Amino acid sequence: MARLLRLIEDQPEVARPFLKQLHPHTGKAYLIGLTGSPGVGKSSLVDRLIGEFRKQNLTVAVVAVDPTSPFSGGALLGDRVRMQKHATDPGVFIRSLATRGAFGGLTPAVQGVVQVLDAAGFDRILIETVGVGQDEVDIVRLAQTTFVITVPGLGDEIQAIKAGIMEIADIMAVNKCDRPGAEQTLQQLNSMLEMNKFTGRERDWPPRIVKISARTGEGLSELMETLEAHRLFLTRERPDLLAAKRRNHFTELVLDLVKEETIRRVQQTLTTDSSWEERLAMVLTGENDPYTLAEELLGDREME
Amino acid sequence: MARLLRLIEDQPEVARPFLKQLHPHTGKAYLIGLTGSPGVGKSSLVDRLIGEFRKQNLTVAVVAVDPTSPFSGGALLGDRVRMQKHATDPGVFIRSLATRGAFGGLTPAVQGVVQVLDAAGFDRILIETVGVGQDEVDIVRLAQTTFVITVPGLGDEIQAIKAGIMEIADIMAVNKCDRPGAEQTLQQLNSMLEMNKFTGRERDWPPRIVKISARTGEGLSELMETLEAHRLFLTRERPDLLAAKRRNHFTELVLDLVKEETIRRVQQTLTTDSSWEERLAMVLTGENDPYTLAEELLGDREME
Repeated sequence: MARLLRLIEDQPEVARPFLKQLHPHTGKAYLIGLTGSPGVGKSSLVDRLIGEFRKQNLTVAVVAVDPTSPFSGGALLGDRVRMQKHATDPGVFIRSLATRGAFGGLTPAVQGVVQVLDAAGFDRILIETVGVGQDEVDIVRLAQTTFVITVPGLGDEIQAIKAGIMEIADIMAVNKCDRPGAEQTLQQLNSMLEMNKFTGRERDWPPRIVKISARTGEGLSELMETLEAHRLFLTRERPDLLAAKRRNHFTELVLDLVKEETIRRVQQTLTTDSSWEERLAMVLTGENDPYTLAEELLGDREME
Repeated sequence: MARLLRLIEDQPEVARPFLKQLHPHTGKAYLIGLTGSPGVGKSSLVDRLIGEFRKQNLTVAVVAVDPTSPFSGGALLGDRVRMQKHATDPGVFIRSLATRGAFGGLTPAVQGVVQVLDAAGFDRILIETVGVGQDEVDIVRLAQTTFVITVPGLGDEIQAIKAGIMEIADIMAVNKCDRPGAEQTLQQLNSMLEMNKFTGRERDWPPRIVKISARTGEGLSELMETLEAHRLFLTRERPDLLAAKRRNHFTELVLDLVKEETIRRVQQTLTTDSSWEERLAMVLTGENDPYTLAEELLGDREME
């Protein structure tokens, strides 16, 4: 399994035949996507969640994705530190994804890793990512339950993000709830929920907000109940929504794979056909423009 | 100009012929890309920078990009609030980009907007974006000078991001430098710089770190000098690097345009050819897998 996971990152095209074979054996694990700004305490909370799931005798895999890590390599360090804590427990597996894949696609790599862990039989897979940009949104959307973590007093700018996060969060946790301003943050989130209701954006599952402290463990059991409630809501009450999610994931994956492959081919054309050098130079001098060049490139590919 | 800018967001394919015509008239503005986590005070700092540039009689355009805003719509609100402050100054133009374009491409939209503002004759264009994910990195890379803002005491998690940011930042500002821990943050950043040197990653322009306070104005003149120093470094000492940057931007833009168009066509195939419905359903039942489906889709497109 570890070898296949490495292959997905290093040589995705070599991993592909294995992933094809694994596909029919997936779909059993329950996926939870976690995201939140830097410093909200995701790692501590994930540690807590692992502990809680293990108490319930559920096996847990964590996929930590750091979209900034092609530069930092920071994820891998965190990986090692965290692995030590659970090194003796075969029911826990933690993996960091540091690379974006050769052509910028992060989602196919994450989905590949999740698929392997799913086929390996893990009961719960936590997909953890830093931040709240589009990359992160795409990543947590791979999960069945989307779980967003925030803390009190992150400043005004965060409000806009919170409003955006409301659209994707099934569950929101206000961590470090012993900090000043926790009640205020909670109220703000609740009033945003209310607002969404009145603007007609009410969803099948209105996002739930839980106050926690990963440090002291406060609110943890309520959080676990809420996570389970959302799982039961999807699996028992609304299997249609669950099926739609799965369908969307695969549509996205297929589109991402097509995109990756197209870019790979175009880059090959650019590097092997020397006339592109000259045509690009003409864009720089203003004799040609990038839009026309893109059209030429698409036209050429079509005539192949 | 305002109408063309709106067109880029709403109907990129209608805007395209105009962008083609504008292309030869671009390349005169100097682009500065700003990024940083939520809450580091980017907006206040941008306001300060506008003021400083105006003192020098330079016209300024600001493109504020919020990758999370397809959900929040938050950027537009900020836009209006900030516009009011400079509403009477024809030498200042502020524009928020709230949409990602129909097929997820943010970079082409930003590049289009920048191109229009460049052709319109603005001396400085600030491209401002929230966060430090890949989207943000791609966006600030459109600029000639990449400027990253941080604050003291953002927690441990931020360290990994800082390490990553080091790779793209030409200038780093530690804002809110009157806060406790400012010296420590500065030291950490400096030792990271040192480390980069020893691991052989030294660059032509070693990133410079400036301590500022957007609130009080402390360090602002030093920041302005540093920004100008980097501009002169590129334009006078190393025009080769400047040309390479421009070349890279256009290569990226062309690839992005090709990617967008490919996805548009594939999605069209998926929605118009009903056989894809069935083939996708087979992925869900496990009879087919997403990788094979992607290959089929690519194969079909090629045979068109």
